This record gives sequence, structure tokens and C-alpha cells, in this order.
Amino acid sequence: MQDTAPPTTKGPDSAAPYTPTARTVPTRAKERASYDRELVHSILDAAYLCHLGFVRDGAPVVLPTLYGRVGERLYVHGSTGSRPLRNARAAADPGLPVCLTVTHVDALVLARSAFHHSINYRSVVVHGTATTVTDPEERRIALDAIVDQAVPGRSRDARPANTKELAATAVIRLDLDEVSAKVRTGGPNDEPEDLTLPHWTGIVPLTRGYGSPVPADDLDPAVGVPDYLRGL
Amino acid sequence: MQDTAPPTTKGPDSAAPYTPTARTVPTRAKERASYDRELVHSILDAAYLCHLGFVRDGAPVVLPTLYGRVGERLYVHGSTGSRPLRNARAAADPGLPVCLTVTHVDALVLARSAFHHSINYRSVVVHGTATTVTDPEERRIALDAIVDQAVPGRSRDARPANTKELAATAVIRLDLDEVSAKVRTGGPNDEPEDLTLPHWTGIVPLTRGYGSPVPADDLDPAVGVPDYLRGL
Repeated sequence: MQDTAPPTTKGPDSAAPYTPTARTVPTRAKERASYDRELVHSILDAAYLCHLGFVRDGAPVVLPTLYGRVGERLYVHGSTGSRPLRNARAAADPGLPVCLTVTHVDALVLARSAFHHSINYRSVVVHGTATTVTDPEERRIALDAIVDQAVPGRSRDARPANTKELAATAVIRLDLDEVSAKVRTGGPNDEPEDLTLPHWTGIVPLTRGYGSPVPADDLDPAVGVPDYLRGL
Repeated sequence: MQDTAPPTTKGPDSAAPYTPTARTVPTRAKERASYDRELVHSILDAAYLCHLGFVRDGAPVVLPTLYGRVGERLYVHGSTGSRPLRNARAAADPGLPVCLTVTHVDALVLARSAFHHSINYRSVVVHGTATTVTDPEERRIALDAIVDQAVPGRSRDARPANTKELAATAVIRLDLDEVSAKVRTGGPNDEPEDLTLPHWTGIVPLTRGYGSPVPADDLDPAVGVPDYLRGL
């Protein structure tokens, strides 16, 4: 069924940009917004943690959670006892309205004026309705994708979830449909009349990286660090 | 007025933990939750970007934004034309329900089983009602705090906002009242029966840092890198 088949191969329209909607067109800094599919994918694929927003009792809730991208679908998972996933399952039809946001901060931008201080960043905001994934094969693909999103290749080097663990795990899906990216790059944008002020101005790049893997105390010393970790 | 005075000095109860509420007590992993004020402050003070959630037309919206902490108050700012701040101002009484979340990811946690993969993280979730700040002195303190949250000391080395800029800037406040922290540390928690599986297990620490400051093209070369940037 198309609905549950792994969307790992892209259709002929995969290069088309996302269609802007009332809530994905910003009210300001419109020039920073993009609906480019490749850009959106690249921002999503450079991260594994999102901030997932939903409404509970009329109030917003924003929780950090891991995700995985498979084609035009995002997956998040959690305990079947967790509140957002309980909500999604309770509301399987029509689903749970969510907003899923991923942000990278690339640099601090220091202008001569406090007003023009900013950050260079890349973000993706996805609006939509999260639905519970029940198809066993799609659930397996989703769970592998969440593991591989943080450590590509890891899902093949771990014991897959067993029946009991699968029963305790809820998987929800959010399709990439109503999506926008927002990107700021470059230096400060000072006012012309401020250019002679004596304040240092420029950007401070932010760096992210990985420390050396730390084996668990109970790991057999004969098990070496796998290649997929060396390649991070 | 106590309502607008800078809450930079802490009262006698500053060491008391935050009071748990129905929405700050997690439904699972309760042992990771904390209401410790110093822990909450330390997590907030190690960051400057939050994910701010609010409800628009019944649906959740989550946007990345800068913030500043002053005592038991968080401030965010934005263009007076931006939607969340417009909402907050339109709803000045009783204000805009928001959820403000800050997350640090400290390590990837690779267990032998896919199910027990995790991350080490520190997060703070603040629930509450955001209100527009109108007092000029509190607005100034808030704007300085937002600049100094990312680069401590910078607000004293930048041109303060002028009248026109202040008019274009909305400042909203969220009090630290309904707050929780959540922290995961340590290694993987594998099942006893998995301990002899041949998969590498342990953690991969994540590092964050600053690159060398890059001066703007139009900066007078005589202006050296200030001490507060060297100290980042």
C-alpha cells in the first residue's frame, strides 16, 4: 500500500519546492524564508533533535525529542505512556496538530548597535497533523530511521526491538507538506550612521563536534570502535 | 514598583525549588525531572536560544528565538510586527499562554539494543503566560539581558537602542514559576540479557565551542577583539 510503503525513493516531483501557506509565510524577514526541498532536507538531516509542539488543555507544550526523516516523512517515537503520543493515539482520527521545529545556530552576529545583534541560523518549521503509525513494517523503518538520524549506520549494529519493546513504543508520523526553512547568513547589518562607532563588530562562529567515544564499563574490550562512529 | 524593578537581587526564598504542577510532573522518566532552582538557572544560563511555543488558530507554533534571564524572569523580544508578539500584545490581559523550552544535548547514548538508545541532555520547560513589557526601564534591562545572554558583557559595548528602534521592538516577559528541568546523564542502560551482544556500546560526547571572531569587512582594524569575546 502506498500509505505504508517506505518512501525512500523519491517521485518525479521531489525537486519541487514546498507550497507556501498562510502559516509558513513569515510576517517579517521574508527574504530569509525558503521552501526549497533540498534545503529543508539538508537542515533536517544535519540534526536529530527537534522541538515538538502540541496543544494540551488549550495551552502549548514544547518538548525536545529525537526524530528521523524518511523521504517526505518525519517520525518521532516515545513511550506509549508519554502524553503527546497518548494524545496522538487517542486522536488517531483526525490526528494531533503539531509543529515540529529544528534549529541550528551557526554564529553570533555582533553589530555596532544592540538592535542589530542577531544570530546566523538555519531552521525548519513543519506544521501538520501527527498520526500514529500502526503498520509493523513502517514502524520498523521509522525506528531504524530515528536511530540512524543521530548515528548513520547504527541501526544495523544494534539488537532490533523485540515484541515487548515494540508494544511499549509509540511511533508517530508527520508528513513534510506544510514546511518552511529560514536561514540567516553573513555579517552584521549596521545602520550607515553607526559605521564609525568604536565597537567591535563581526561574527563569532559556533562550532559543534564529537568527542572520542567512551565505551561502557561493561563493554568487552575486544569490541573496537565501529567505523560509523569514526566517520561522525 | 516591585512589578517593574529589576529582580537582580534574589529574595530569601531564592533557594527554594519550584513547585511541581500537573504539567511539570512527567508521566514517565520521573527520576530525570527536577525542580531545583539552581539547576534550572544553570541550564538556562548556558544557552541563549529557546524554542517558544504558542497557540495560533487552535494549532501549535514553535519558533526559535533568543532570550535573556533576569532573576526569575525570562525575556524574549521581536519585531512589533511579528506574530507571537502581536498576539501577546493583543492579549495583554490575561496574556499569551506559552511554553518556553531550552535544551542542551551532551552526548549520544548507544546501547546494545536499539530500544535503549538515548541522548544525554539537560532541558528546561517553562509554562506560563507571557505578557508585554511596557515599563521603559524594564524594557531596557530586558534588551540588555538578551544581548548579554549570548555574549556576557556585550550590551555595554554596543550602541543602545534609540527611540525609533525601541518603538519597533516588542518585549515580552515570562516569569519562572511553573518550571521543570530534565536531565539524563551516564551510560547506556542495557537489558541484562543483552550484555554479551557483540555491539559497541557507550556514549559519544558532543562538543560545542566558538571559532575565532571574524571582524566585519568595514571594521576599523584598530578595533581589537574585546576581552569579553576572548573569554567566551
